[in-house]
Amino acid sequence: MGVAELSSSLKTDLSLSSKAIFQSNRFCDRRRCSFLQLSRTRSARVTCSIAPNEVEAAPVAAKTEEPKSKSECYGVFCLTYDLKAEEETTSWKKLINVAVSGAAGMISNHLLFKLASGEVFGPDQPIALKLLGSERSFQALEGVAMELEDSLFPLLREVVISIDPYEVFQDAEWALLIGAKPRGPGMERAGLLDINGQIFAEQGKALNAVASPNVKVIVVGNPCNTNALICLKNAPKISAKNFHALTRLDENRAKCQLALKAGVFYDKVSNMTIWGNHSTTQVPDFLNARINGLPVKEVIKDHRWLEEEFTEKVQKRGGVLIEKWGRSSAASTSVSIVDAIRSLITPTPEGDWFSSGVYSNGNPYGIAEDIVFSMPCRSKGDGDYELVKDVIFDDYLRKRIEKTEAELLAEKRCVAHLTGEGIAVCDLPEDTMLPGEM
Amino acid sequence: MGVAELSSSLKTDLSLSSKAIFQSNRFCDRRRCSFLQLSRTRSARVTCSIAPNEVEAAPVAAKTEEPKSKSECYGVFCLTYDLKAEEETTSWKKLINVAVSGAAGMISNHLLFKLASGEVFGPDQPIALKLLGSERSFQALEGVAMELEDSLFPLLREVVISIDPYEVFQDAEWALLIGAKPRGPGMERAGLLDINGQIFAEQGKALNAVASPNVKVIVVGNPCNTNALICLKNAPKISAKNFHALTRLDENRAKCQLALKAGVFYDKVSNMTIWGNHSTTQVPDFLNARINGLPVKEVIKDHRWLEEEFTEKVQKRGGVLIEKWGRSSAASTSVSIVDAIRSLITPTPEGDWFSSGVYSNGNPYGIAEDIVFSMPCRSKGDGDYELVKDVIFDDYLRKRIEKTEAELLAEKRCVAHLTGEGIAVCDLPEDTMLPGEM
Repeated sequence: MGVAELSSSLKTDLSLSSKAIFQSNRFCDRRRCSFLQLSRTRSARVTCSIAPNEVEAAPVAAKTEEPKSKSECYGVFCLTYDLKAEEETTSWKKLINVAVSGAAGMISNHLLFKLASGEVFGPDQPIALKLLGSERSFQALEGVAMELEDSLFPLLREVVISIDPYEVFQDAEWALLIGAKPRGPGMERAGLLDINGQIFAEQGKALNAVASPNVKVIVVGNPCNTNALICLKNAPKISAKNFHALTRLDENRAKCQLALKAGVFYDKVSNMTIWGNHSTTQVPDFLNARINGLPVKEVIKDHRWLEEEFTEKVQKRGGVLIEKWGRSSAASTSVSIVDAIRSLITPTPEGDWFSSGVYSNGNPYGIAEDIVFSMPCRSKGDGDYELVKDVIFDDYLRKRIEKTEAELLAEKRCVAHLTGEGIAVCDLPEDTMLPGEM
Repeated sequence: MGVAELSSSLKTDLSLSSKAIFQSNRFCDRRRCSFLQLSRTRSARVTCSIAPNEVEAAPVAAKTEEPKSKSECYGVFCLTYDLKAEEETTSWKKLINVAVSGAAGMISNHLLFKLASGEVFGPDQPIALKLLGSERSFQALEGVAMELEDSLFPLLREVVISIDPYEVFQDAEWALLIGAKPRGPGMERAGLLDINGQIFAEQGKALNAVASPNVKVIVVGNPCNTNALICLKNAPKISAKNFHALTRLDENRAKCQLALKAGVFYDKVSNMTIWGNHSTTQVPDFLNARINGLPVKEVIKDHRWLEEEFTEKVQKRGGVLIEKWGRSSAASTSVSIVDAIRSLITPTPEGDWFSSGVYSNGNPYGIAEDIVFSMPCRSKGDGDYELVKDVIFDDYLRKRIEKTEAELLAEKRCVAHLTGEGIAVCDLPEDTMLPGEM
């Protein structure tokens, strides 16, 4: 079921909505909800549900009007706050809206608490979390919102839960797109591209319609590069440069494997690029990476290991982890999302860079245009980035980059119907899903 | 199976050990491990396992000597670091050892990443994580260690995984005791007290033998008050004042419920005490709590709600959360553990206090001595605390405190065989496990 179908089917099921918020929305009475709507003219569709038996005030007229959607503020976060009115919060920055899809999943269960604690955006940045789930996960979303309440994070001032991306992305300054359909039994990568592509096309349209024009989008749901491409193609009002596909976990794992091989702590590894697709064709670049400031090949003399084993080590990490731990790597994935955000909002250390899957137009490496390709980036800390120019290539690196490039071009042909570029032709040669990912 | 049995049965199963660390310990060759042991004279039992096919050095003699235990440093954390030798780390504090039991569980899966990120102890406090698991969870522990590697936390300098508390608690400055046996079907609270009591008696003995004499212990595993009592009784060398039973999640939930009822943000609620046991007899104290600096009863006029509904709201939270979310509240529990630690290492704000289950000897409230009872505390931020004197009581509060006190005294009689006080007599009147807890 696509997101559009999900949300339309939901709109008929409102009895659940008023029942499900029984536990916590007891203070969303008519007066407060009206106030909320008045004060948030740009987000008028946000409605507050009412649990009548929990409220002392008179029965609420709003209840008889059928709300337009299932989006709702949650519990204590339905209050409005004047942060400029109080001594402790007057020096705080303006509230930012951070939208997260797949919000009831395990990666989000780590990430949301990091966002709310101030660990990501800093101790003076109040935050509104807009949580996107599915009909099936809606109760779990409420559970997440309850745990956020119970955590008493001072910076967390709004929580909205919804199954409608048009609600959740309203005025979003960050959109962290984690939710994606897992691959069912027997499903080919082409099938996965199609089913998730539809979700990301819909979400791109929603971002285009209601998000902040400068929204930064990080796509985590797989296949993330092509999902990001579909998303940006459906959001023409938003600069393509604002879309990222997460390859930071790959970068982190690559740094760790080089550190292990070299017998150094991982903070000694820098300039690590992941080139291309977040798939088994990805290229962890040991030619440009450095250890203690020296080229990797000068430190690790075992070049056979670099060429034949290193990449596999990085890629198999997720699979090994599932074997051992029985679950996918939600905690380290969420750490890598935090790293990716921080890399865009803090200046990149002198001489270093980070990897992100970004729109390839205008790249200086001769990589095909009009795909989302992981490349080395630097940021001034303003949310934007520039591509790094001083990287070197050799035949080995070039050949591998061409392979991942070819794959991304094939994936693109596979989703032409979702990017407005005609009829899809799917000729994906092999399954390149990373082990341990869904 | 008690911990003693667990660890002895494990010592016979060493083939698993060398196989299981295949993935990451490739740099623990003989030279490095020797160095590690030389440099850590107080922790000589820590051994590094070897994956011979991953190491370029000569076959390793240590492998043929049977190691004494299954404790091992993990992967990149087997290196030793001289933090004083490098510019970025020379101003850092001395490494602290933090031991965590139940380290492969869901609460730890949130908590460990918070500890490693610097969110708890600060950005200049390097940390060693000593992870205690069970034989059954050992592979999962490796998974946790792998994700910690992949997260590249600069402050995390050592990770040791083990099933032996004598290894894990070596020189521990903090011991966060999360692991406990869940209650099996049909098990009475008395049975749970006994089975977990044995674990905590063993862990108390281990702390007594090898931990830092000033170790701070926070018991999370249920029944946590009596587990903490058993633990401290088995650790006579450690001040009883250093043991805490976690009631911070209850405190946080109580604050949130008062905020919801009063229609204020949760940061306006202060002076919240949880009295007594972490069970349904616990007493969230609305007599002394304040909202915007005013007594709660002056702000919330619905005293019937305070007396008849508020406590149940707080206690049922965990159960409601399981219904909605399908899982217990690992994320907010780990946030509350962080809060509990921070409350001991940062000065308590003027006029406020926090709750912790602490040893009752010398309390100024007339509560029975020699039990672990949640009470209002203040700290200078030195890891220690003092009990708050200026609290008031009324008949309602007194009566409820007496009930939770009676329960803790009954629980104590129930575990007399584990505290060295003779023959246990179990007369627990009813099941007082909090909903949603195991």
